[in-house]
Amino acid sequence: MPYSYAGKLLRVDLSTGRWHVEEIDGAKVQEFLLGGGLAAKIYYDETDPVREALDPDSSLILMAGLLSGTIVPTSCRVCLCGRSPLTGIWNEATVGGYWAAQLRAADYDGIVVTGSAPEPVYLWVSDNSVEIRAASHLWGLDTYATAAGVREETDPKAQVASIGVAGERLARVASVMVGGKDARAAGRGGMGALMGSKHLKAIAVRGNSSREYYDRKGLLDSVRSANRVIKESSLGMTQFGTSGGIVTTEKVGSLAIQNWRLGSWAEGAPKITGERMTETILTGNYRCHACPIGCGREIEIKEGPYAGLKGAGPEYETIIGFGPLCLNDDLESIAAMNDLCNRYGLDTISTSGTVAFAMEAWEKGLLTSEDTGSLDLSWGNIEGMMGLIDLIARREGLGDLLADGTRAAAERLGRNSIEFAVQVKGLELPYHDPRAFTSMALGYATANRGGDHLETMTYWHEYGKQWPDMGYVDPPDRLVSEGKAQMVYDFQNFMGVFNGLGLCKFIAKGGVGPQLLADWVNLALGWHWTVEDILSVGERLFNLKRLINVRWGISRKDDMLPPRMFAHARPSGSAEGNLPHLGKMLHEYYSLRGWSEEGIPTEAKLKELGLHPGAKE
Amino acid sequence: MPYSYAGKLLRVDLSTGRWHVEEIDGAKVQEFLLGGGLAAKIYYDETDPVREALDPDSSLILMAGLLSGTIVPTSCRVCLCGRSPLTGIWNEATVGGYWAAQLRAADYDGIVVTGSAPEPVYLWVSDNSVEIRAASHLWGLDTYATAAGVREETDPKAQVASIGVAGERLARVASVMVGGKDARAAGRGGMGALMGSKHLKAIAVRGNSSREYYDRKGLLDSVRSANRVIKESSLGMTQFGTSGGIVTTEKVGSLAIQNWRLGSWAEGAPKITGERMTETILTGNYRCHACPIGCGREIEIKEGPYAGLKGAGPEYETIIGFGPLCLNDDLESIAAMNDLCNRYGLDTISTSGTVAFAMEAWEKGLLTSEDTGSLDLSWGNIEGMMGLIDLIARREGLGDLLADGTRAAAERLGRNSIEFAVQVKGLELPYHDPRAFTSMALGYATANRGGDHLETMTYWHEYGKQWPDMGYVDPPDRLVSEGKAQMVYDFQNFMGVFNGLGLCKFIAKGGVGPQLLADWVNLALGWHWTVEDILSVGERLFNLKRLINVRWGISRKDDMLPPRMFAHARPSGSAEGNLPHLGKMLHEYYSLRGWSEEGIPTEAKLKELGLHPGAKE
Repeated sequence: MPYSYAGKLLRVDLSTGRWHVEEIDGAKVQEFLLGGGLAAKIYYDETDPVREALDPDSSLILMAGLLSGTIVPTSCRVCLCGRSPLTGIWNEATVGGYWAAQLRAADYDGIVVTGSAPEPVYLWVSDNSVEIRAASHLWGLDTYATAAGVREETDPKAQVASIGVAGERLARVASVMVGGKDARAAGRGGMGALMGSKHLKAIAVRGNSSREYYDRKGLLDSVRSANRVIKESSLGMTQFGTSGGIVTTEKVGSLAIQNWRLGSWAEGAPKITGERMTETILTGNYRCHACPIGCGREIEIKEGPYAGLKGAGPEYETIIGFGPLCLNDDLESIAAMNDLCNRYGLDTISTSGTVAFAMEAWEKGLLTSEDTGSLDLSWGNIEGMMGLIDLIARREGLGDLLADGTRAAAERLGRNSIEFAVQVKGLELPYHDPRAFTSMALGYATANRGGDHLETMTYWHEYGKQWPDMGYVDPPDRLVSEGKAQMVYDFQNFMGVFNGLGLCKFIAKGGVGPQLLADWVNLALGWHWTVEDILSVGERLFNLKRLINVRWGISRKDDMLPPRMFAHARPSGSAEGNLPHLGKMLHEYYSLRGWSEEGIPTEAKLKELGLHPGAKE
Repeated sequence: MPYSYAGKLLRVDLSTGRWHVEEIDGAKVQEFLLGGGLAAKIYYDETDPVREALDPDSSLILMAGLLSGTIVPTSCRVCLCGRSPLTGIWNEATVGGYWAAQLRAADYDGIVVTGSAPEPVYLWVSDNSVEIRAASHLWGLDTYATAAGVREETDPKAQVASIGVAGERLARVASVMVGGKDARAAGRGGMGALMGSKHLKAIAVRGNSSREYYDRKGLLDSVRSANRVIKESSLGMTQFGTSGGIVTTEKVGSLAIQNWRLGSWAEGAPKITGERMTETILTGNYRCHACPIGCGREIEIKEGPYAGLKGAGPEYETIIGFGPLCLNDDLESIAAMNDLCNRYGLDTISTSGTVAFAMEAWEKGLLTSEDTGSLDLSWGNIEGMMGLIDLIARREGLGDLLADGTRAAAERLGRNSIEFAVQVKGLELPYHDPRAFTSMALGYATANRGGDHLETMTYWHEYGKQWPDMGYVDPPDRLVSEGKAQMVYDFQNFMGVFNGLGLCKFIAKGGVGPQLLADWVNLALGWHWTVEDILSVGERLFNLKRLINVRWGISRKDDMLPPRMFAHARPSGSAEGNLPHLGKMLHEYYSLRGWSEEGIPTEAKLKELGLHPGAKE
């Protein structure tokens, strides 16, 4: 079943200032898709695992998905891939907006950046030129100002991915940002620091070519019909954004409160919801390329301490992280912290996780005012939180300890602070409690980039969502461990293709299953994929990334929950007392995965997936 | 309730060659007993936790129990305490025989040894003299020859605790041995290396005083009656030794096979049992001071490769470790390995665990003939095992890597070998599978000296033994996790007094509960203890040792099962597929213990136990 695919890869070496264009091997695309898939294959084949994340010769691979920039719903995403400065293992941070669409309109599928420029630069990629331009005058600017500056010097319609001060100063929780008042983050895993280590302030892209489809009419029909379904099932998301369900989150016992210690926060939750945002500071919503949902929030604060704040509003994860996680119920302050993080280029999940960690260290007397300067890190103290974000972005004072995330901070702080560093493999957990959605315990423990929900997303099914074409129609008891290994295995394979296709996972929540993904691939490219092909490529990609991590020493010992999740049950609320049986789930999971008892893919499984040594290059 | 107690402590500084005698504070004895209890209190109060185990100023505390050397059944034991060279945390290795009885007959309860002698020495303690004598002429001798040599130079009836080559060369799996053809080991935690670091080859003791009792007749009556019960219920142990139940062990799925990977070994088990030993090489049994059981095995091998071997035979742990754990079903070879370990002064549990670890590393290609010299480490290869024991004791070649146990070896060997290093907190697990006796998972995870069964022993109850005066009459399902936290808590408190009293835990298996322990204390000393007093002092001691470990950074993160136990179920047999729910048990356990969610004793609990800062000294 050899399907054709033609595409181009731009390779840029910042050390020498040279670049060249390569044809992409169509056979590889069929096996690995694009996005995080082909990026992983390139990384696995080309990169010496001994290389540290911030080694100048480490590569940063930006790769659009196979359907990115098409008319397929939410085909907006690009993956930023490489070794994470935060976790030291494989990382794949994806971002929406319009950057990926512009890259493909410039006729590139991806960019592989290696080396480090002697002075700050930005990269300008258009239809017919590639330029590495001086960026010393932009160094030190926030991401919004950077994007504006770059657009002024290139093209007003250029899409700009940039880093702020946090990435420049190699904060390992630094993000890469696209957009402005419609800001979007490639947040997780510290890819901002990877760009910073290359002195690469920004990458601007702009193109004019339009995409051709194997069956334009068929695709258009399918997309129109899907968009209707997605829109209908995503009304809440359109109206209230990603934070529309926070009161429910609290009710089901999944709200992360006071660094994951408490079980209930009924008094606080209603104050920080998307509904409350809609009633107060919301001015509109925004959407990424080809998106029928539009979950983005535009806000404006007109009075009070944050008066004048205008632009992108906070997402669910940001609201939880700077809200209940730190016992802060002031929504406007959360919006202000979100704005700070966007400008500095900081991942709001890892940053808020680190702030909460510091607040608990303060409570326990492991950090004192001697460490924090004048900052008071009492729970809920907004000034302390804002100050700490500032220090982290600049790596100043206590920020230098915290800028590398909770695992590193705990290692340096010692005195058992690792007990409340809530991370897996170095990546701070997003805010979906594995004690309320037991499957996520296994998901967090096994996700390739560390404590990540996006590789699994099974809590949607535990919440009640159905995927008939995957056979998932009867949502299970969310508090039990039985049967969850199979679910995690299936969903990780399903979720594993989204980054390869360049699609946003919210369409899956909106009802899109593997059959529709196969349809779109087939209509767009003339392939003949089935549901099985989709799930099998997802499995191949999941295993490929595990293989990359295994080279760095990852094995079962690392497939753990953080201490706080492992033996500390929520003390109240509807998930009170529940603790996932991780050992048992892992045991079943390895067997389903065809991995050894040590969590290493077996020869037989690798052969089945065409990943064994000696498989065709 | 102030009870009187008078006793003496000998303090020896080997660096200066000076010693002096101290009165023991009776109030402390009432709170902490003697043995591992008072030793822990002395250690906690006096020792800078920064000190490394093998620092010359580290202390080695040998302390007899409160009833050691009396007529109370099995009152034979002495504890060797201090910081473990193997685990880096609190260690308390106890040994039977007659050494403790002689120490007390010389009118000492304990010896605190600090410093390090410039040249090898031995210590000779009798009724009326203490001498530090040159031992260069004994250095390099095995433990049997050492004991014989020391007895020749001191008193033919002196009891000698000595180290062999392993302790001299600081192998961190080195034991301290007493006895000869009735050999007994203070095995766990590498106390042989601690003696070796002090250049202390042996400690000989001999005395003539006899003990007085508050109510001699009452005690005698109670002991006689107890001895009858113990004898009757220990018939199997007397007849077949500790290894009498191995076929049952295999049947219940608790046999440790091929480094804990396999589930069944029905063909091998019958060849290595105590019953088989009785039929073949057994020549008699031996007993410790005041023991009604006599589990010790005297053996003689008259033909074959080990012809001429005569003396102490192997125990249960030794047989499992050098038997099924390494896929070896040759009982005589196991007896020979036991003899080797006794002579070299090696803990047979940690040594066999390390040999099995090396065999698995060999199977996986992590160790090759280049590493092993000429040794072939294939499973069950006796020559390879014997050769490896030799190398470990001498720290030669590969032995230098392995002599510090599996955790250190895995750290140095890397490549995920920690996956099959079966240890907790650095101490290799004894051979009672927590997947077959779920309570032991929690027991291993929380025992103060690391992977240790003796602090918990709940598998006896899961096997069917009853303790009516503790309320344990209905043995629970051994494969479930529910209810086990309470059991572990209760039994750890009960087991916690045995080392303080100087008694062997086999009498508990023989039916002795806390009431009888209280009776004996009361009859011997005129105290008025109850069952509650017994259990409460057990709880105090357990917490005191946790406090010592907390100073070294121990917390919940360390209360784990090894990777192999955590997610790898036994693949066959009657415990097939079972995995303990450690997280849930830990959660309940910390709450019962009054420890924080991080596994640290709370202020309130310490106050209750009189262990809080500011408690009377």
